[in-house]
Amino acid sequence: MILRCRRGTPEEAVTDIERLLQENGVRTVRSPEARRPILAVLDKLPGGLAEELAASPHIEERAAPAKGAFRQVSRAFQDEPTVVRIGKLRIGPGHPCAVIAGPCSVEGRARVLENAHRVKEAGAHMLRGGAFKPRTSPYAFQGFGVEGLRQLKDAGEAVGLPVISEIMDAAHVPAFVDQGIDCLQIGARNMQNFTLLKAVARAGRPVLLKRGLAATVEEWLLAAEYLMEGGCTQVVLCERGIRTFETATRNTLDLTILPLLRQWTHLPVVVDPAHASGIATLIPTLCRASVAAGADGLAVEVHLEPAIARSDGPQALLPGELKQVVAEARILSSLFG
Amino acid sequence: MILRCRRGTPEEAVTDIERLLQENGVRTVRSPEARRPILAVLDKLPGGLAEELAASPHIEERAAPAKGAFRQVSRAFQDEPTVVRIGKLRIGPGHPCAVIAGPCSVEGRARVLENAHRVKEAGAHMLRGGAFKPRTSPYAFQGFGVEGLRQLKDAGEAVGLPVISEIMDAAHVPAFVDQGIDCLQIGARNMQNFTLLKAVARAGRPVLLKRGLAATVEEWLLAAEYLMEGGCTQVVLCERGIRTFETATRNTLDLTILPLLRQWTHLPVVVDPAHASGIATLIPTLCRASVAAGADGLAVEVHLEPAIARSDGPQALLPGELKQVVAEARILSSLFG
Amino acid sequence: MILRCRRGTPEEAVTDIERLLQENGVRTVRSPEARRPILAVLDKLPGGLAEELAASPHIEERAAPAKGAFRQVSRAFQDEPTVVRIGKLRIGPGHPCAVIAGPCSVEGRARVLENAHRVKEAGAHMLRGGAFKPRTSPYAFQGFGVEGLRQLKDAGEAVGLPVISEIMDAAHVPAFVDQGIDCLQIGARNMQNFTLLKAVARAGRPVLLKRGLAATVEEWLLAAEYLMEGGCTQVVLCERGIRTFETATRNTLDLTILPLLRQWTHLPVVVDPAHASGIATLIPTLCRASVAAGADGLAVEVHLEPAIARSDGPQALLPGELKQVVAEARILSSLFG
Amino acid sequence: MILRCRRGTPEEAVTDIERLLQENGVRTVRSPEARRPILAVLDKLPGGLAEELAASPHIEERAAPAKGAFRQVSRAFQDEPTVVRIGKLRIGPGHPCAVIAGPCSVEGRARVLENAHRVKEAGAHMLRGGAFKPRTSPYAFQGFGVEGLRQLKDAGEAVGLPVISEIMDAAHVPAFVDQGIDCLQIGARNMQNFTLLKAVARAGRPVLLKRGLAATVEEWLLAAEYLMEGGCTQVVLCERGIRTFETATRNTLDLTILPLLRQWTHLPVVVDPAHASGIATLIPTLCRASVAAGADGLAVEVHLEPAIARSDGPQALLPGELKQVVAEARILSSLFG
Repeated sequence: MILRCRRGTPEEAVTDIERLLQENGVRTVRSPEARRPILAVLDKLPGGLAEELAASPHIEERAAPAKGAFRQVSRAFQDEPTVVRIGKLRIGPGHPCAVIAGPCSVEGRARVLENAHRVKEAGAHMLRGGAFKPRTSPYAFQGFGVEGLRQLKDAGEAVGLPVISEIMDAAHVPAFVDQGIDCLQIGARNMQNFTLLKAVARAGRPVLLKRGLAATVEEWLLAAEYLMEGGCTQVVLCERGIRTFETATRNTLDLTILPLLRQWTHLPVVVDPAHASGIATLIPTLCRASVAAGADGLAVEVHLEPAIARSDGPQALLPGELKQVVAEARILSSLFG
Repeated sequence: MILRCRRGTPEEAVTDIERLLQENGVRTVRSPEARRPILAVLDKLPGGLAEELAASPHIEERAAPAKGAFRQVSRAFQDEPTVVRIGKLRIGPGHPCAVIAGPCSVEGRARVLENAHRVKEAGAHMLRGGAFKPRTSPYAFQGFGVEGLRQLKDAGEAVGLPVISEIMDAAHVPAFVDQGIDCLQIGARNMQNFTLLKAVARAGRPVLLKRGLAATVEEWLLAAEYLMEGGCTQVVLCERGIRTFETATRNTLDLTILPLLRQWTHLPVVVDPAHASGIATLIPTLCRASVAAGADGLAVEVHLEPAIARSDGPQALLPGELKQVVAEARILSSLFG
Repeated sequence: MILRCRRGTPEEAVTDIERLLQENGVRTVRSPEARRPILAVLDKLPGGLAEELAASPHIEERAAPAKGAFRQVSRAFQDEPTVVRIGKLRIGPGHPCAVIAGPCSVEGRARVLENAHRVKEAGAHMLRGGAFKPRTSPYAFQGFGVEGLRQLKDAGEAVGLPVISEIMDAAHVPAFVDQGIDCLQIGARNMQNFTLLKAVARAGRPVLLKRGLAATVEEWLLAAEYLMEGGCTQVVLCERGIRTFETATRNTLDLTILPLLRQWTHLPVVVDPAHASGIATLIPTLCRASVAAGADGLAVEVHLEPAIARSDGPQALLPGELKQVVAEARILSSLFG
Repeated sequence: MILRCRRGTPEEAVTDIERLLQENGVRTVRSPEARRPILAVLDKLPGGLAEELAASPHIEERAAPAKGAFRQVSRAFQDEPTVVRIGKLRIGPGHPCAVIAGPCSVEGRARVLENAHRVKEAGAHMLRGGAFKPRTSPYAFQGFGVEGLRQLKDAGEAVGLPVISEIMDAAHVPAFVDQGIDCLQIGARNMQNFTLLKAVARAGRPVLLKRGLAATVEEWLLAAEYLMEGGCTQVVLCERGIRTFETATRNTLDLTILPLLRQWTHLPVVVDPAHASGIATLIPTLCRASVAAGADGLAVEVHLEPAIARSDGPQALLPGELKQVVAEARILSSLFG
């Protein structure tokens, strides 16, 4: 439940309500929304308290979020869109479409640096690169680990781009922070790894949360709620395709839910069309469609020689293709932004 | 298998090849492609014939279509995009995004006429309206039948728009033709109703073929192959959302396959975002995304008073919203067309 | 809505209620249930009539079926299980598990006769065989048509088994009846071919209705409702696997819904494990599981030489395997029947 | 790749092959199979080595597992079924169907003890109970943690049953071991939490690995491969329903893959029909179907008062129902075991 106070409710009246709830064992969170005080009520109200609140002259409405368990992610809690800040980059409505690009895996110092130069030239805003790789087979390349993080960060600094990398283990949070990784990515397979969500929430860094392969929008936003409940307000959602019966493409990009997310949550959304399709030649068109559907950003893989990539080569763009993607994203987000 | 002859192969050499195959019980179809003779080979080659063809100086290559059973739908058979002609309307690459709009069901002479006026004003290019309705329950409104077709056609003529309506029964083909329905729609539930496909193929009218709820792209194009095999070359594909695990939206619009269709087939594609989402407020954004993904057209439902529609009210646009959709489609298709 | 009268309500009181509804434009159907009068109300009640009915001393309850639009298929309308009669065969609770077996396609007079002898010997209760084949590709073998029906019926008569075959076209109903086909099968692709459902309902023959590849249980039972609304009470449901993301098997057999069907409907259910798995070696085990899950029957394909079958060879059983399946089904249905 | 040596190959010849591979940077694992030496080759063979191996007189065949990346899980590596040992319990072919039962969550010392007594009386072989609960919402009951493990173990010891509980965090491994948890469960949401798989593999305890909600059989077995690669050979697979379009049941129990698993892997499989259906009245029938499909065990939730359970009450069995399930499982596994 969300309690929305009338505009102009004096601060002491709000703290009285908070104290009343707290004394009854009910936790609350205050919305950052400036226009009026709004409280997310995290626990069930004990008997009698609902009536007491209903009688308060300060509470305008008890709003129901789009789905029962939503609290801090919901538009009822915060109507104003969240704009996530990563260094100088802004991801969210009112800002240019943010393009996140780089290699699937960090594959060595020289290569990632070269890649960073090329994606920067092409107009990307953040450098991506995997150092810990979630691989279906235990015998596949698992990434360079902390050394990979270091190489990624150095490359990002060399070209002046913030960096993002996937974290798979709660125990790695200090390493990601120490290496200066600007944004922590939680992958599709770990979307409901609640241990990881809780640990990452406390890292003090923005988080990009990918949608699980078969996660409903409700489950995805509740995973984001885990992050917010843990203290992280800088959450970027990332749609990356869902698993369906169709086998012509690797997954099915679910753009249908982009306008729905706008109604349900204030969090920004980026789209990763590469993992959805698994076919590089489809990606530029899917980037257009994503931005037209309202994406606040795009996440793509770029490789200088896709044929020799250690992972996901067939879905990587060339730098020249990225340039075109960035240009089209700019036009579309200026048209509909 | 597709046989592609060298440019400049004399006509008699091609007919020799056709005759040779025919004498061996192998049916062929000649591609309309002007640049070189191309033959779709419909049956398996008997022993020895493959070698004989391989020795021909006129055959440049024996091309494999994207999927094994594709013949006339494939780009290997016809590289040039098909532009479907419905009256003065053209659907396909190089033409403005075609907007098909109108009520879900024809609900009476006055209403469909009023609707036609409004969608015409808003810029639509073809009037849609259901007279035979495929309803999940036998007790739901089943449509006005032939009288509905008549009212639809009259409305279309009054405003100068061609009309399209869904056909569910092979026995109704003469009625659709007699009433002058300009384009016959095959619905998602009937995509693999092969009896209907064969009958409609012989109607001599353009056909809009919706993708089945759980049809793979391969099955869908083979349904189109049924139409082409039956003599209908004027086929428009219509993506309308697939059935997935997600319940927040009615279906999941599969835009991922739009750029793939361009690689696999020469047939034009329109998108129906209303049945995919089931939520009217999502439709304008999904229309943008569809056109950006390369759709040659859009199919939407418009109702003057959605609240009282006899079917599918919650997913109908208002005429003012349609106007905006048409305007945005025009901009996008001029940008990327 | 379902109206359930008190036990012992006099017949004239029931006809009074029926007449009252009819005069108000509301259609009703009387349940065959002997223990008390029950009426399915097919249309919405006009204002005031609900109150009038509520005041009747004869109506014990206004029951809601499991899903809103269910009427004649629901347990609320008929609590007693339907036992479908096909010649001497009985399909339903209290009767031995009915085994339907035979070739995928009728492939000639001698072959189907040989097949019939073998499945009869193995203990099957009905002979199946396709004469009209729904094929994904227009160039694949489409069946022998009416001649196939004739060969199937002759084979069935020679060995003393009723026969079942798939009907794809409303116009074929007279041919199926003339050839003496004992049970008409509606295939998965045609489950929502409402034209066909309506025509088949009037054929006066029992019908086996396969579940659509992506049909919910609700949609499937409403397809059965179309049959019952058209006058056919002898409906057998057939679960044959649904389309999911899993590609290791052709489809996923949905046995989860078998005990649910018992709660929702009085109609009997058979299971076709061959189309679900697509792998012959899995079928005997899936037959066991189906009977243990409560199936009233099994439908399997048998081929004497699967390697040369014109369709679906890889999922056909050999006669010896069928014998084992029949024996195990007998044991399981005696244990749990 | 799997190298299968001829029967009777001398031990030194096998170690020669192992050494040759090792010197070329190729890791191998020896199969426990006694009848002949078999080696799983974990890395790609460098150029030339394949030829060298092909020339060896000791290698009978280079077998391909059912799916490319399978190694230690595959029947090609170990043909003999694995029977997992948990205290005196045996799970696998040739042993009675193992019944795992207990509360969804440990809800206090007295309750879990009472529950343990009842499931023991009903004939269960292992006590289950959640202490760390993966909940979709961060505000839902998250379990009693280590104290819950302690209560579960005490209850198990009091009635003489081994215990199983879900582990969600690599850091909890020592706590599970210290509390004497006999079998560690990896839940569906964590099936591809590779960090957790690696940590649990080193715990030296048997592991029950649930199938992910949308995991293919291939991905599931590769998750088991992670466990085996980490040194854990005592792995029980647990099918618990997959996510499909059907909403009448919570998930769809995939029994189709049970006989397929027998062909692909030597690991035993148990079925959890409760999470699949989400409806308690369906569970006893689904238990029958699972055992008939070849399940080596069943995992069910039992609650003494389902109405007041803190989680998953609607899908819990009563002790009396469990007794019936155990009895039927015994009969079925003796019939088909």
